[in-house]
Amino acid sequence: MSSQNGEGNGSKRLDVIFKPSSVAVIGASRGTGSIGYQILDNLVTFGFSGKLFPINPFAEAIHSFKCYPSVLDVPDPVDLAIIVVPKDKVPGVVDECGEKGVGGLVVISAGFKEVGGEGIEREQRLLEQVRSYGMSMIGPNCMGVFNADPEIALHATFSPTHPPPGDVAFMSQSGALGVAILNVAREMNIGFSFFASVGNKADIAGNDLLAYWEDDPGTRVIALYLESFGDPRVFTVLARRIARKKPLVVVKSGRSEAGARAASSHTGALAGRDVAIDALLNQCGVLRARSIEEMFNTIQAFTRCPLPDGNRICILTNAGGPAILATDACEEYGLEMARLTDETSKQLSKILPAEASVLNPVDMIASANHQTYRVCLELVLQDPEVDIVMVIFVPPTMINPTDVATAVTEVTRRHKKPVVGVFMALEEFYEQLQEKLPDHPPLFFFPEPAARTCFDLCKYSQLRRRPEGVVPVFDVDRERSAEIMAAAKKDGGGFLMMGDVFDLLKAYGIPTCRMGQAREAGDTGALARSLGFPVAVKAAGRGIVHKSDVGAVALDLRSEDDVSAAVKQIGENLESHGLLSELEGFVVQEMTTRGQEVIIGMSSDPLFGPLLMFGLGGRYVEVFKDVVFRPVPVTDVDAWEMVESVKGLPLLKGVRGEQGVDLPLVVEVLHRVSQMVMDFQEIAELDINPFMACHDPSYSRVVDARIRIEAPE
Amino acid sequence: MSSQNGEGNGSKRLDVIFKPSSVAVIGASRGTGSIGYQILDNLVTFGFSGKLFPINPFAEAIHSFKCYPSVLDVPDPVDLAIIVVPKDKVPGVVDECGEKGVGGLVVISAGFKEVGGEGIEREQRLLEQVRSYGMSMIGPNCMGVFNADPEIALHATFSPTHPPPGDVAFMSQSGALGVAILNVAREMNIGFSFFASVGNKADIAGNDLLAYWEDDPGTRVIALYLESFGDPRVFTVLARRIARKKPLVVVKSGRSEAGARAASSHTGALAGRDVAIDALLNQCGVLRARSIEEMFNTIQAFTRCPLPDGNRICILTNAGGPAILATDACEEYGLEMARLTDETSKQLSKILPAEASVLNPVDMIASANHQTYRVCLELVLQDPEVDIVMVIFVPPTMINPTDVATAVTEVTRRHKKPVVGVFMALEEFYEQLQEKLPDHPPLFFFPEPAARTCFDLCKYSQLRRRPEGVVPVFDVDRERSAEIMAAAKKDGGGFLMMGDVFDLLKAYGIPTCRMGQAREAGDTGALARSLGFPVAVKAAGRGIVHKSDVGAVALDLRSEDDVSAAVKQIGENLESHGLLSELEGFVVQEMTTRGQEVIIGMSSDPLFGPLLMFGLGGRYVEVFKDVVFRPVPVTDVDAWEMVESVKGLPLLKGVRGEQGVDLPLVVEVLHRVSQMVMDFQEIAELDINPFMACHDPSYSRVVDARIRIEAPE
Repeated sequence: MSSQNGEGNGSKRLDVIFKPSSVAVIGASRGTGSIGYQILDNLVTFGFSGKLFPINPFAEAIHSFKCYPSVLDVPDPVDLAIIVVPKDKVPGVVDECGEKGVGGLVVISAGFKEVGGEGIEREQRLLEQVRSYGMSMIGPNCMGVFNADPEIALHATFSPTHPPPGDVAFMSQSGALGVAILNVAREMNIGFSFFASVGNKADIAGNDLLAYWEDDPGTRVIALYLESFGDPRVFTVLARRIARKKPLVVVKSGRSEAGARAASSHTGALAGRDVAIDALLNQCGVLRARSIEEMFNTIQAFTRCPLPDGNRICILTNAGGPAILATDACEEYGLEMARLTDETSKQLSKILPAEASVLNPVDMIASANHQTYRVCLELVLQDPEVDIVMVIFVPPTMINPTDVATAVTEVTRRHKKPVVGVFMALEEFYEQLQEKLPDHPPLFFFPEPAARTCFDLCKYSQLRRRPEGVVPVFDVDRERSAEIMAAAKKDGGGFLMMGDVFDLLKAYGIPTCRMGQAREAGDTGALARSLGFPVAVKAAGRGIVHKSDVGAVALDLRSEDDVSAAVKQIGENLESHGLLSELEGFVVQEMTTRGQEVIIGMSSDPLFGPLLMFGLGGRYVEVFKDVVFRPVPVTDVDAWEMVESVKGLPLLKGVRGEQGVDLPLVVEVLHRVSQMVMDFQEIAELDINPFMACHDPSYSRVVDARIRIEAPE
Repeated sequence: MSSQNGEGNGSKRLDVIFKPSSVAVIGASRGTGSIGYQILDNLVTFGFSGKLFPINPFAEAIHSFKCYPSVLDVPDPVDLAIIVVPKDKVPGVVDECGEKGVGGLVVISAGFKEVGGEGIEREQRLLEQVRSYGMSMIGPNCMGVFNADPEIALHATFSPTHPPPGDVAFMSQSGALGVAILNVAREMNIGFSFFASVGNKADIAGNDLLAYWEDDPGTRVIALYLESFGDPRVFTVLARRIARKKPLVVVKSGRSEAGARAASSHTGALAGRDVAIDALLNQCGVLRARSIEEMFNTIQAFTRCPLPDGNRICILTNAGGPAILATDACEEYGLEMARLTDETSKQLSKILPAEASVLNPVDMIASANHQTYRVCLELVLQDPEVDIVMVIFVPPTMINPTDVATAVTEVTRRHKKPVVGVFMALEEFYEQLQEKLPDHPPLFFFPEPAARTCFDLCKYSQLRRRPEGVVPVFDVDRERSAEIMAAAKKDGGGFLMMGDVFDLLKAYGIPTCRMGQAREAGDTGALARSLGFPVAVKAAGRGIVHKSDVGAVALDLRSEDDVSAAVKQIGENLESHGLLSELEGFVVQEMTTRGQEVIIGMSSDPLFGPLLMFGLGGRYVEVFKDVVFRPVPVTDVDAWEMVESVKGLPLLKGVRGEQGVDLPLVVEVLHRVSQMVMDFQEIAELDINPFMACHDPSYSRVVDARIRIEAPE
């Protein structure tokens, strides 16, 4: 492993685990049903290239190997120890390993952090012990590791079957799923370069493995099954870099913990944990699969296909029904149905019978044989309007699916465009496939997973083509901002007063509406007159958070009489909510009604750090949740993606003859907010709601905003 | 078949096809790769209970049967003829069949309507010919029929494998998919009572089969693969009735044709064809699967499970990872995670080790064996808080999945609650399953399809429990309405003038806002004063359709000066859009701003008839498309479902301390509109947008509406 990724030391720590010259299995057993036997057996039958030493004080020989009572009795050096003894015996054997000078441990034994209580302490002590000897460890509570490299040939898991060798590096956080994953991979002909079940991740964690696999020439795709993130900030840096080199596919379970967080701001309430994960993975260019099955379909495509240059798909079929299903699925995923050139259609019509369709989907009808597939696939792959092809074959009685698959494979081999197949053939066809056509394109029985896979290829290709972007830096008044922060922290933190919020926004060059503050109700009329009618009046007071909920806002007041009536009503409303004592004065603002309300917010996730949010504002934000998140700082690419990915985008671009709003200013405000929350980590929550976005940017401005400051402990 | 369903005649027409005593295969062939041989072979090897007669003028014997040159040469009566001759020979053999007195035909031959052009006429002539002899026909261009009833044992398709017998009646509109469907069914152990590939549906269509299978005691589930609907109104009546007796599962492909329709109203633009199909199926209680695979998963559950009484699910597992994936999927489908009673948790904790979880998901941890599954499943099935159970098993090395599946099957047998399994076991387990445990619960490898299946069981159960509902009838002024219709039709149809629209709505008891019309700009001020300020002013004119798009609406005018300025501006706006000549006057309305805008509309689908629409109004309707459709007339159950299924429901119920709107009045307006469009089929489109729904129903009213009348040809 090179050290250019700055993880040279990590690489060495993992080499002792994945590339050992000698392995001891501590807790090896003669009982053929036991884990201690299974691991030894897997090592032997997979043909480990180094030396194996079973360790068991109660056996002379296991699996025809001489058995040693302790690792200390082994006459040769030992690089890696696989530990399968009961939890209480683990500390003893770890000491012996340390004394022996073993480099790496894979601790299969369970009964540590995963059982809670005492287990947590047991794991802590184990980790200290391992570190004191300078060893590295995978586990505890894991199912083992695998390295397909024929120079090593290490299969040290208790899986009942050998993982097929290949070019996918897989990390599973769940041991139970690990066994299932190896089973599925075998049935789907997906091979592994590396496999690691990391268990409790006490020492070696997912990020270490990512770095280890980043430049491994034998690894084409990296796949992770995660139940939690270790250090998401390290993950972000690593994943962002790696995803530009090779596809990174993740299943992250525990989606339903989303929304469990209670938060007082809109942004906070909308930023469930799962949303943060989606935002983070998206920003890094990582593909998230919704299930293990989908993950394997996607992996299969990445190991078997080049990346497409765009998302224009052509469907080539011998039957109408499945092509309709395929078209439905492609359109649902947002793939574009390619418009074939006239030349391609003309050529197709020369070959195909009159009843065929030479438009997309190209329906060659039931008489198509492997020669028809060969010629037509060649034609559509040559078409410059086509980026990716889905070939569908439904077996009529006479045509042999293997002949068709062979023709498709041969044509595909000569092109640089991806081809995905739907073969509704019998099990026998699939069983013989790998042997007969080892480089066949990804094949599926049904059109829907094929369409999903095409979508993933297009999406990853697009993520890779996406420019890295830059984080713009604006000239801001940090001094004034720091004063406001300092004062707020001195006061114990909490929500800033409206005036301070607006001053802070102004210091960061964010346009705000004209406003004034009046301590007394009697002063509001004159203030309104000086701003010019119509105006809005709001109660001021740090204890009055959701102002419109308690009737503390009056809009569109057109005279001093209107204002004084409104101020009186606000007082009564606050009284009825028991909040009158919180009233510290009134804010009077110019009315801004001509634009589109948007919300720009920030919520700080304890694990992921600050997340910037953008969405449509007003009461719709809560109901439709049409918002998008990105970890800060956001690049120009990120900011534009945020604005352009909300469903309500047409409202911003102008519907029904309206003029659209000035989006560059909205993007600029996102950047300025991003800069602010990067500069002042004490900002715990921020809601600009609404920002009134207008066609003429000089009218665009913040109408209302709230900022909460975390007080120092 | 009984004739109580009013389809007695249809039943007889299908009996000649599905229950023949003698079958002729016209076009039978000695060539073992041919369709004409395959069908004969399938009939023989499946053990047809009647007599078989191959027909081929060029063969003496086929498949050891004496062969006849023509059906006319057969010495016995012939009930059913399977026709496999080239298209040009079809008319001749059909004549012979008619002369022979054959009752039913299955025409496999292709080259009819599906190829267009001449084929359309050829099919028309074929149908006339068939009808002239009083025969019934399936096809042409189909793959045949199947009846598993051992008294009949009819397998007359060219599928290379026999469909497994069972209790699912399946109709496929696609012949190509038909073969694939039979393959998948065999691999999934799903058996058929009937199977029919209906091809071009020239004579016998889907609705005939539905009626035929409705009361068939051997059919537990009906499944349809559709590419188009024949007569949706007949389908609706049939499906609604049948779905209350047995589950009806449909895959309707061609979803992406949705939105292809151009329409001038909002409702029309939103009512894509696919949306209409969803609405219709939902109203009928039919389950729509998104893919063939999902359809089979659902079918498997219906054939193997009782229906649950509710949607509270309990997950019982031996590993955490898959249970997390399962919980994610269940929550995404809206299933409720059951809260086990304290008693159940207490009993579980007596049995399970301390590290186990006795809350839902119940994690019995890796040491659980088949006895643990037996006892724990018994406990959670007994819990009154649990409606349905998902059992997850990930095989550790020592535990035999078949033992666990046996325990689960035995416990499930004794209960009336559905159990669905996730067994992440090797292929061998699944291969032996059907033989060892014929009544096993539905089992899946991955948690996600299991969760989807649980959802489908719960959803169908809920659809079945849903009351039928009644269509309320209101006392309305039909006479006045008929006058308006007559006048509009006399004028050539098109959009009604605003005054007529409001009069029509009033005649149907739908509250409208106060308004007046002024022919001259100069009269608007006085009109506004008489209504009371604030007012809205709109241009009137049948050629001015999207008024706000062209600046022909002014809102919230608070004085006569405001009104006269607005009227002037509207004139200028119309001029700049070249619409000034369309101006026929002005409408002045009271302003109503205190409620929530909703849209109530109707669009007439050429195939499905009038569809009622409900959704949130204003500009959001177009962007978020948060609307719901139902075919008219709507029952009270339908109307409440419409209102309660929009995503924006919280806005109607009141967010952030607002008062909710009066929903009973909204529902009543839906009913009144439904009645109006049932009464006057000449209403082609109707948009009430917005209806201002208020907390106090006496303020709720129509603010703007458009109605288009179809002129008589």
